Amino acid sequence: MGTRAESNSFHRTLAYITVLAQCFALLPVRGIAAPDAEALRFRWLSLRVAYTAAVLLALLFMAFFCARHLLEEGGSFQDAHSHCIIFLPSECVIFYGIAIATYVLFVRMAARWPDLGAQWRAVEHAQRCYGPAKRLRLRVLCVAGVLLAGALVEHLLNEFSNFQAAGGSFRCYLLRSHRHLFHYVAFTPLLAAFATAAGALATFSWSFMDLFLAVVSMALAARFRLLNRHLLTAKGKYVPEAFWSQAREHYASLVALTDSLNDCVSSLVLLSFGSNLYFICLQLFNSLKSLQHWYERLYFYWSFSFLLLRTVAMSLSVAEIYEESRSPRSVLYAVPTPCYGAEASRFLQMMCSCDVALTGLNFFKVTRSMLLTMAGTIVTYEVVLVQFSHSDAQAHVTTTASTTTEFLM
Amino acid sequence: MGTRAESNSFHRTLAYITVLAQCFALLPVRGIAAPDAEALRFRWLSLRVAYTAAVLLALLFMAFFCARHLLEEGGSFQDAHSHCIIFLPSECVIFYGIAIATYVLFVRMAARWPDLGAQWRAVEHAQRCYGPAKRLRLRVLCVAGVLLAGALVEHLLNEFSNFQAAGGSFRCYLLRSHRHLFHYVAFTPLLAAFATAAGALATFSWSFMDLFLAVVSMALAARFRLLNRHLLTAKGKYVPEAFWSQAREHYASLVALTDSLNDCVSSLVLLSFGSNLYFICLQLFNSLKSLQHWYERLYFYWSFSFLLLRTVAMSLSVAEIYEESRSPRSVLYAVPTPCYGAEASRFLQMMCSCDVALTGLNFFKVTRSMLLTMAGTIVTYEVVLVQFSHSDAQAHVTTTASTTTEFLM
Amino acid sequence: MGTRAESNSFHRTLAYITVLAQCFALLPVRGIAAPDAEALRFRWLSLRVAYTAAVLLALLFMAFFCARHLLEEGGSFQDAHSHCIIFLPSECVIFYGIAIATYVLFVRMAARWPDLGAQWRAVEHAQRCYGPAKRLRLRVLCVAGVLLAGALVEHLLNEFSNFQAAGGSFRCYLLRSHRHLFHYVAFTPLLAAFATAAGALATFSWSFMDLFLAVVSMALAARFRLLNRHLLTAKGKYVPEAFWSQAREHYASLVALTDSLNDCVSSLVLLSFGSNLYFICLQLFNSLKSLQHWYERLYFYWSFSFLLLRTVAMSLSVAEIYEESRSPRSVLYAVPTPCYGAEASRFLQMMCSCDVALTGLNFFKVTRSMLLTMAGTIVTYEVVLVQFSHSDAQAHVTTTASTTTEFLM
Amino acid sequence: MGTRAESNSFHRTLAYITVLAQCFALLPVRGIAAPDAEALRFRWLSLRVAYTAAVLLALLFMAFFCARHLLEEGGSFQDAHSHCIIFLPSECVIFYGIAIATYVLFVRMAARWPDLGAQWRAVEHAQRCYGPAKRLRLRVLCVAGVLLAGALVEHLLNEFSNFQAAGGSFRCYLLRSHRHLFHYVAFTPLLAAFATAAGALATFSWSFMDLFLAVVSMALAARFRLLNRHLLTAKGKYVPEAFWSQAREHYASLVALTDSLNDCVSSLVLLSFGSNLYFICLQLFNSLKSLQHWYERLYFYWSFSFLLLRTVAMSLSVAEIYEESRSPRSVLYAVPTPCYGAEASRFLQMMCSCDVALTGLNFFKVTRSMLLTMAGTIVTYEVVLVQFSHSDAQAHVTTTASTTTEFLM
Repeated sequence: MGTRAESNSFHRTLAYITVLAQCFALLPVRGIAAPDAEALRFRWLSLRVAYTAAVLLALLFMAFFCARHLLEEGGSFQDAHSHCIIFLPSECVIFYGIAIATYVLFVRMAARWPDLGAQWRAVEHAQRCYGPAKRLRLRVLCVAGVLLAGALVEHLLNEFSNFQAAGGSFRCYLLRSHRHLFHYVAFTPLLAAFATAAGALATFSWSFMDLFLAVVSMALAARFRLLNRHLLTAKGKYVPEAFWSQAREHYASLVALTDSLNDCVSSLVLLSFGSNLYFICLQLFNSLKSLQHWYERLYFYWSFSFLLLRTVAMSLSVAEIYEESRSPRSVLYAVPTPCYGAEASRFLQMMCSCDVALTGLNFFKVTRSMLLTMAGTIVTYEVVLVQFSHSDAQAHVTTTASTTTEFLM
Repeated sequence: MGTRAESNSFHRTLAYITVLAQCFALLPVRGIAAPDAEALRFRWLSLRVAYTAAVLLALLFMAFFCARHLLEEGGSFQDAHSHCIIFLPSECVIFYGIAIATYVLFVRMAARWPDLGAQWRAVEHAQRCYGPAKRLRLRVLCVAGVLLAGALVEHLLNEFSNFQAAGGSFRCYLLRSHRHLFHYVAFTPLLAAFATAAGALATFSWSFMDLFLAVVSMALAARFRLLNRHLLTAKGKYVPEAFWSQAREHYASLVALTDSLNDCVSSLVLLSFGSNLYFICLQLFNSLKSLQHWYERLYFYWSFSFLLLRTVAMSLSVAEIYEESRSPRSVLYAVPTPCYGAEASRFLQMMCSCDVALTGLNFFKVTRSMLLTMAGTIVTYEVVLVQFSHSDAQAHVTTTASTTTEFLM
Repeated sequence: MGTRAESNSFHRTLAYITVLAQCFALLPVRGIAAPDAEALRFRWLSLRVAYTAAVLLALLFMAFFCARHLLEEGGSFQDAHSHCIIFLPSECVIFYGIAIATYVLFVRMAARWPDLGAQWRAVEHAQRCYGPAKRLRLRVLCVAGVLLAGALVEHLLNEFSNFQAAGGSFRCYLLRSHRHLFHYVAFTPLLAAFATAAGALATFSWSFMDLFLAVVSMALAARFRLLNRHLLTAKGKYVPEAFWSQAREHYASLVALTDSLNDCVSSLVLLSFGSNLYFICLQLFNSLKSLQHWYERLYFYWSFSFLLLRTVAMSLSVAEIYEESRSPRSVLYAVPTPCYGAEASRFLQMMCSCDVALTGLNFFKVTRSMLLTMAGTIVTYEVVLVQFSHSDAQAHVTTTASTTTEFLM
Repeated sequence: MGTRAESNSFHRTLAYITVLAQCFALLPVRGIAAPDAEALRFRWLSLRVAYTAAVLLALLFMAFFCARHLLEEGGSFQDAHSHCIIFLPSECVIFYGIAIATYVLFVRMAARWPDLGAQWRAVEHAQRCYGPAKRLRLRVLCVAGVLLAGALVEHLLNEFSNFQAAGGSFRCYLLRSHRHLFHYVAFTPLLAAFATAAGALATFSWSFMDLFLAVVSMALAARFRLLNRHLLTAKGKYVPEAFWSQAREHYASLVALTDSLNDCVSSLVLLSFGSNLYFICLQLFNSLKSLQHWYERLYFYWSFSFLLLRTVAMSLSVAEIYEESRSPRSVLYAVPTPCYGAEASRFLQMMCSCDVALTGLNFFKVTRSMLLTMAGTIVTYEVVLVQFSHSDAQAHVTTTASTTTEFLM
C-alpha cells in the first residue's frame, strides 16, 4: 500500500502535467519527473529558467509590435466589434500581455514550488492512514486530456480559419495572422515560424493556467474528502478524545496547506478569472454579429464553448476546496454530549472562524456563491452591451435612411 | 394522539400531492399512498419509471423539433419581442428544456426519496412529544389548490387565446400551437393530441416544481416551529441541563434533515429560481408592448400575475426554513446564568456556525435577503430593458420620418 | 430622580408625537397621553379605530378614482416624465396606495403597542440605575419639529404651485388638483374639501412614518448608549463577575426589546424604504427636465431636498441602533484575564452571534453598509435613467431634423 | 536600541510629512517636530489654526465664485464632456468643495491628534520588545516622495497645458485658469497670485489626504506585522499560557488603537474614496474623447495614471491593516492541545468577532474584497457611460446626415 500511496501522491499525479508544462517553458523546476517531491529544486541559474526567459523575450517582442500597432492604428473599444476572428490590435496586446503575465507568475511560483511540494508530501505522509484518493489520478488525466485536446482543436481551427480567410495562400495567411509584426518587419519564413511558435506558446499557456489551477484544486479537495470520509465513520458514535484531537490536527494541517497553496497561486487565480471574464464578455458581445463563412462560425462556436467549459471546469474545481472544507460540520454537530470535549469544540470553532478557499490575491474567495456573483455580472454587462450593439445597428439604419434621401434627390 | 400524529406525518401530508405528481409521471416511487413512509421503494426497473421515461422521450421529441425550427428560422434575442403570446422558437426550446430538466431531476430525486422519507419519519418519531404541526395539512392543501387551479386556468386561457387567434378553427389552432412540429411532420389528429398532451405535461411539471418545493419547505419549517414553540415555554426559566441537551439534539437532527433535503432538491431549487427569473424578466419586458385583443390581454395579465404569485409563494416558503431556524437564539440569550452550561453554549455555537437553509446547488442560500437581491436584479434588468425597448421605438420613429421624406419628394 | 426618569421615559418622550399622530388618525391607542405606559389600551371597537377606519375609507375612495383614471388613460412608465408637478395617474395611485398601507400598518402596530410599551417600561425600570437618556427628549423634539415643519412647507408649496398653475382661480385649482376625481364626479365645494383633506392626510402620514421610525430608533439607541456609557466606566478594570452578569442581562433585555420593536415596525420600515427609494429615483429623474416657472422650481427643489433629508435622517437614526449595539465589544476585549469568566465570554458570544438591528420584514437589516448599498443602487439606476432621457432628447432632435427636411422641400 | 526604537516611532516617522502638511496649513497641531509625541498640543486659539482658517476662507472665496458661475451658466452632467482640461463650473465647485471638506476634516482630526499620538506611543512602548518596524521609515519616505513628486508634475503639466492653450500669453492664461473668478471681479496681478495659490493648496490637500491615509495605515499595519512575526516564532511550539496572555493583550491594544485611528480618520476615508471614485469615473469617461494637442494628451494621461496610482496605493495600504490583522489565525490553529487554554481560545474568539479595519464613517470597511466591489462598480458605470457617449456620437451623425440633406437641396 505504501507504493500505491506513493504512486498516488500529489507529486506523481501532477508529473505528466508538469512535464508537459516544461515543454512549453512553464514551471522551470528540476525534479518534477522524480519519484519523490524531495527531488524538487529551483535555481535561478538553470537551463530551464533560461528557456523560460527566452520564451518571455519572444512574447515581449511580439507584444511590443502589437502595442506599436495599437498606438499607431488606434484600437478603442468602439472599433473592437468590427471584425471578429482576426485579432484586433487591442486584443492582440491583451492576449500577449496575459501570456507574459502567465509566464512571469509561473516562474515566481516555481521558486516556491519545492517548499510547497515538501509540505504537501509531509501532509500526505502524516495522513497516509486515510489511504490514497480514489480515482483522483484518473480524473486529473481526464480533465487534462479534455482541456488540452479542446485547446489544440481550437488553435487548429483558428489557424485553418485564418488560412481560409487568406484565400488558401500560405504566405498570405502568415502575413495576415501576424500583420502587427510584418507591418514593421520584412517577411521571412524564419520570422514567420518564430511568430507562429510564439502565438502557440501564448495560446497554450493561457489554457494551461486554467488546467493547472483545476488539477491542483482537485488534488487538495481530494485530501479534504479523504478526511471527511474518515470523520463520517465516526458520526454520532462514541469515539475517544484522541480521535478528535488527531482529526483536528489533520484538518489544521490541510488548512495550512491551503494557505501555502494560496500564497503560490493566488495571483494566477486573479489573472485566470480576470482574463476569462474579459474574453467571455467579448465573445458574448461578438456573438451578436453575423459571420459569413462556415469556418468562421465553426471556429467561433467551438472557441466560445471551449472557453466557457474551461472556465466552468476551473471555477468549480477551485470552489470544490471550499465546499469540501465545510463538510465536517455536520459530523461535529452530531457528536454525543459525553464525547464533546475541548478538542471537538476547538475543531468547530476553527471551522467557523476560517474560510478555507483559494483566493484571487485576497480580493475574492473562490466559492460557489462568488461564481454566481460573477455569472450575474457577466449577464448584466451583456444586457447593457446588447443594447449598445442594438443602438449601433439602429444608428446604421438611420444614417442609411438619411443617406438614401440624399441619393434620391 | 398516535394516530393523529401519524395522519399529520410528512408522508401523509404529501400523499395527495405526490399521487397527483405520479399521474403526470413525476416522482416515480412506489408506496406514496401507503400509510407509512416505510413502504417507499424506488426501483429503476418499474412501471412508474417506464412511464416517466416515455414522457421524457415525448418531451425530447418536441424539443428536437423546436430546436430544429430555431436553428433554421433563427431566434436571437432581438426577435424575441416581436410576438408575445405565440411561442417563439427560442422560448419553445427553453420551455421544453426546462420540462426535460424537471423530469430528469425528479427521477434523480425519486431514487433518494425513500431514504429521505425514512429519515423524516425517524425525526418525527423522536420529536413526537411536540405534537403534530397545527394546520400544516390545511395550509398545504390551500397552497396546492390555489397553485394548481391557477395553473389550470392559465393553461386554458392560453389554449383559448390560441384558439381565438386561429380564427376559431380547431385544426388551424392545433397547427398554430405546434407549428414547430407540423412544419416538419404532416398533420394527423393523433400527433396533434400527442403534442397537446406533451405541452400540458410540460406546463404542469413547471408549476408542480414550485408547488413541490413550497410544500416540502412548509413541512420542514413547521417542524422547526414546533421545536421553537417548545423552547419558548422555557424562556428565562430554570430548566435542567437535560432539557437543553435534548433540545440541542432535536435541533441538530432537524439541521441534518435540512441537509438531506437539500441534497435531494438543491438542483430543483436552482432550476426553479433560474426559470422563474428568466420568465419574469421576459414577461416584464413583454408588458411594454400593446396587445390588440382582450383575450390576449386577459391571458397576459393572468399569466404574469400567476407567475409572480407562484414565485413569491415558493420563495417565501423556502426562505421560511431559514427564518424559523434562527428563532431559538432569543431563548438561548435569556437562559439564566446557573442553567447556562455546556449544552446551551454548544447549542448557541451550533446556531451561529451554520446557516440552515435550502440552497440552489450551493450557489446561493434561499433566505429573505437573497430574495431581495433577486428582486433588485430583476428591477435593474428591467430598467435597462425598458430603455432598450424605448430606443427601439425611437429608431422606428426616426426611420419612419426619414422614409416619409422619401415619399414626400 | 424617579420623577425625572419618569418624565424622560419612552412613553412620555413620545407623547407629543403620538398625540399628533392621533389627530391624523394614526396609532389609535388609548392612554398615550397618560403619565405611564400601563394605561395603554387597544380595542378594535373604539372611537379611535372608527376614526382611522373612516380615514381609510376616504383614502380608498380617492385611490379608486385614481385607479379608474389610470386604467382609462393609461399611465405607463414612458408617460411618467412628461409632467413633473401635477400628479400623473400612476403616481397618484402609488401615492394613495402608500397612504393606505401606512394607515393599515399603523392600526396593526397599535394592536401590539400596549405590549411593547409595557416591555419598554420594564426595561427602563430595570435599568433605571443608568439614569435617563441625556437630551433625548430635546433631540426628539428637534427632529420632529424640523421634519413636520418641512412637510408643512412642502405641502403648502405644492398647493401654491398648483394654484398658480391653475391661473389663480380657486375652483380651477381644485378641479386641477383632483382631476382624477372630478373627471367622474360633479364638482361640489364639499367634495373638494373632502378631497383636499384626504390629500393632506396622505401627505402627513407619509412624512409621519419616517418621523415615527426615526424617533423610536433614537429612543432605543439611547438605551444602548446608556448601557455602553456604564460599561466604559469598567473598561480594563477589575470588576466582579456580577457586574458582567448584570450587564449581559441588561444587554440581552435590550436585544429582546429590539426584537419586539422589530416585530411591530418591520413592515413599516420596508414600506418607508420602498416608497422613499421610489420617489427619490423619480425625483432625480425629473430633475433632468427644465421647469418653466419659478414656483415650480422652488417646489421641486424644496420637495426633493426635504425628501432626501427625511430619508437620510430616518435611515441614520434606524442604523444607529446597530452601531450602538456593537460598541461594547471593545470593552469586552479589554477585560483583564482574571475577570474574564463565563459571563463575559457569554456576553461576547451573544454579541457575535446576533446582529441587533431593525429590519425591513427580515429582507434587509438597517445598517450603515446597507444604506451605502442603497445609495449605490440609486446612483446606478440614475446613470441608466440619465441615458434614457438623453436618447429621448436625441430622438427628438433626429425627428425634428427629419421633419425640417420635409418642410424645406 | 531604545534610541533606535524612538527614532522609528510613529511620531518621528510621520514628522517630515506632518511638517510638510503644516506648510500647507493642514493638521494645525503644535509639537509635530518634537522628539516625542508627548509634546503634541492642540489649541483652537493658535497661530496654526488661524493659518488654516485663512486658507479655508480663501477656498470658500474661490468656491463661492465657482458656485455663482455654475448657477448662472449651468453645468449639468450633459455638458460635462464638452471640454476636458479646463475646469467646468460643476467640476470647479466639486474640486473646491473637496478641498474645503479636507481642511475642515483635518482641523477636526488635529483636535484629536494629541490623544491618538499618546495612545500610539503607549502601544509602542508596551510592545517595544518586538523591535522597530523594519524599513517602515524608508517605505514611508518612498511613498511620500513618489506621490508628492507625481502631484507636483501633474500640477505643473496642468498649468503648462493651460498656458499653451492660452496661446502662451501669461495674463491670458491666468484669466483662463480662473475665469470663474475674473468673470465677476476685475483682473489684478495680486488677485491672480491669490487664486493660483488657492488652486495649488486645493490640489495639494487632495493628494495629501491620500498620502496621509496611506502612511498612517502603513504604520499601523507594520505594528500588526511585528506582532505576527513574534507569534510565528511560536507556531506549533509549546509556549506557556503567559505568552498567549501577553500576545492577546498586545493584539487587543492594537485593535483599540485601530478603533481610535478610525474615529480620527473615518470621515477622511469616506471623503477620499468618494472623491477618487468620482474623478476616476469622470476621467475614464473623458478618455473617450479625442484630444487635439500633445500637451493635452500628455497632461490627461499623466493625470489619469497618477490618480489611479494614488488611489490604488492608498486603498491597498489601508486594506493592509485588515490583511495583517487576520494573519495570527493560522498560528492559533496550530497551538498544541496542552497549551490551548483560555487565553488562546479568547484570542481566537476576539479575532473572529471583530473585523479590524479602517472604515468610511462605518459605511464600509476598507478590505480587499471591498476594493474589488468598488472596481466592479467603476467598470459597470463605465460600460453604461461608454454607451451614453456612443449614442451621443450617433445622434451627432444622424443630425449631421439630416442637416446635410437640407444643404444638398
